[in-house]
Amino acid sequence: MHRYAMILAGGSGTRLWPMSRDDRPKQLLPLFDGRSLLQLAFARQERLVPDDHRWVCAGERHRAAVLAGLPRLNAEQFLGEPAGRDTLAAIGLGTAVLAARDPEAVVGFFPADHLIEPVDEYRRIVEEGFRVAEENADALVTFGIAPTGPATGFGYLELGGPLDRRAHDAREGDSPVFATMLRMVPAKTGTVPARLVRQFVEKPPREKAEEYFRAGSQKYLWNSGMFVWRAATMLECIRRFKPAVYDGLQTIAGDWDTPGRAATLAAVFPTLKKISIDFAVMEPASRDARFRVAAVPMPLRWLDVGSWPAYADTCPRDDRGNAAAGQNLLLESAGCLVVSADPKHLVAAIGCDDLIVVHTPDATLVCRKDRAEQIKELYKQLPPQLQ
Amino acid sequence: MHRYAMILAGGSGTRLWPMSRDDRPKQLLPLFDGRSLLQLAFARQERLVPDDHRWVCAGERHRAAVLAGLPRLNAEQFLGEPAGRDTLAAIGLGTAVLAARDPEAVVGFFPADHLIEPVDEYRRIVEEGFRVAEENADALVTFGIAPTGPATGFGYLELGGPLDRRAHDAREGDSPVFATMLRMVPAKTGTVPARLVRQFVEKPPREKAEEYFRAGSQKYLWNSGMFVWRAATMLECIRRFKPAVYDGLQTIAGDWDTPGRAATLAAVFPTLKKISIDFAVMEPASRDARFRVAAVPMPLRWLDVGSWPAYADTCPRDDRGNAAAGQNLLLESAGCLVVSADPKHLVAAIGCDDLIVVHTPDATLVCRKDRAEQIKELYKQLPPQLQ
Repeated sequence: MHRYAMILAGGSGTRLWPMSRDDRPKQLLPLFDGRSLLQLAFARQERLVPDDHRWVCAGERHRAAVLAGLPRLNAEQFLGEPAGRDTLAAIGLGTAVLAARDPEAVVGFFPADHLIEPVDEYRRIVEEGFRVAEENADALVTFGIAPTGPATGFGYLELGGPLDRRAHDAREGDSPVFATMLRMVPAKTGTVPARLVRQFVEKPPREKAEEYFRAGSQKYLWNSGMFVWRAATMLECIRRFKPAVYDGLQTIAGDWDTPGRAATLAAVFPTLKKISIDFAVMEPASRDARFRVAAVPMPLRWLDVGSWPAYADTCPRDDRGNAAAGQNLLLESAGCLVVSADPKHLVAAIGCDDLIVVHTPDATLVCRKDRAEQIKELYKQLPPQLQ
Repeated sequence: MHRYAMILAGGSGTRLWPMSRDDRPKQLLPLFDGRSLLQLAFARQERLVPDDHRWVCAGERHRAAVLAGLPRLNAEQFLGEPAGRDTLAAIGLGTAVLAARDPEAVVGFFPADHLIEPVDEYRRIVEEGFRVAEENADALVTFGIAPTGPATGFGYLELGGPLDRRAHDAREGDSPVFATMLRMVPAKTGTVPARLVRQFVEKPPREKAEEYFRAGSQKYLWNSGMFVWRAATMLECIRRFKPAVYDGLQTIAGDWDTPGRAATLAAVFPTLKKISIDFAVMEPASRDARFRVAAVPMPLRWLDVGSWPAYADTCPRDDRGNAAAGQNLLLESAGCLVVSADPKHLVAAIGCDDLIVVHTPDATLVCRKDRAEQIKELYKQLPPQLQ
């Protein structure tokens, strides 16, 4: 068994301030019935790969918190980034370390930021991704989410033809609309055949996003940030498209199983170019004949819990559209998200519409829902002890 | 010296929730540079009456808190109401107890809820009130505030002719507009001659309030709820207009300086009719030829700190009209009141307009400024431990 799953939990999540802090990033917050996004993501990989093939990549400074939250994660399967260097460095590190240990490794990367349901369907679809990567040495597999609106905060995958012509032909009679796929999933193999990705489009302007949304999910999917590939294939991509990063990663991987691991990691990792895997590898690979970027559609309930409004979407609503967690009392208020993180603290609202109110013991946020993006800006102005 | 001053501090102040609580009413909150309304009111009576002639009437259950906040108040000068019975009972009790001890007592009653400045002017004007009551055995003296707008939350005094014809004649050359009075105050005797009160108008509808405001402060003043009279005169009023209350008060006063004080107070006080002094006495007295209700104008900065918007008026504002107390960080917000009562707690706001945000350790309020009246309603729905 050469399959591995690595959870990417390196984000800082300033947009969930004041709940998230520098030393308590959003992935570690027990926001979902007492469980964190990281715990949910870790549990999702169960049965997809052997238990000791589940890895977590996160900030080295969060090591203790991550291990405490995941008692079944071996400390050896924790990849601690000495500094945040975006996804190329994080994914590259995981790829290089696993490739050095297991040249036939097929690795899946899964951001911790997502809620995905139902989990059984998720596993079936990710398994299909593993299969595609195993059967196609040149394939870089992404997972595409069916857009539920013209979001400007996500990247889009423009889909081309089927990756596997035969598989496609066999299904040609299937309906081309995504809604039908949904019905199809349990009835057939549990997956939709992988498609080639013609183009990566980073967070588009509103107009483009609307065009993509109108075009439908046979044409455009959201880039989920989940990937599967053979470690050797990805290393070859990095070598071609970002040779300096490749060299750095090989240096780190070479010292990994020696006493020099920590010193080399600390010296080299922070020098790696800070760039996303999409820009650095996926885009050029999608235009390079030596590789094929594939998208496996994932027609499931999917939520990137990257902001308070997104979190609100995970909460039950009252009949005025308020989502609330913790002790609260809402009078003539509508469309609010009210979170009290301290079980002894009550948050009351009167006549409030579309507000986010989040209370924590040392800081309270009151923010218009349509201004949630500005929490990042606020964060920078906070005194360090509140960051 | 037969002058006495009694501070009325019996309000519950639910409208300043979550700062005010049942056991910590607003008069006791250190909202003003660390001083409470009660402390400010107590200090205002300094030099007006001998120190041991300063009394406080408040809920018996707040005795310890009141005495702790006023180290110079003798426990004997604390009148503890066994239950809240509105102003006739509270003022009647003070009047009866003082009349029994000093038949020549002239007593001023001053609600603790007000901020008044400058204090020197205040003292001059109250002294004039004492003088009027001393020289006119039939006079019930009120103090009238020049309206700053068509408020519907206050009572109005409709003014008649001068109480003292000679004093008035001597000043007839003075301008009739209130703005001129303001200038006049320091230049002349520090007071404006007392006027007869033709009518008490309780909280009027908007239309009436606007009419009164337009009519000007020579015609209508706000009823400040401050009074001065000979104790004997007021007792006579109560005897005539509310004989049952009079009997009760006399029973209590008769036992006051005996071991039966507490038992009689506890037995009788809660049976007294719950009614305001304005309705019960001042209105009928203003229509009764045996008494004269007078108003001494008090052309000073005066604020009834009965609500969060009123409290906001006491705070410095930033250039976007935000008033803030305690740790805060406001981004693109305007017209807000943000109070953090815990020095270690920060309240942050983004994109908020005209909101009240008040944080206390166990409860946070977020309320539209124009809905502040509904805090009373919210209060009733709170769990008892937060009331």
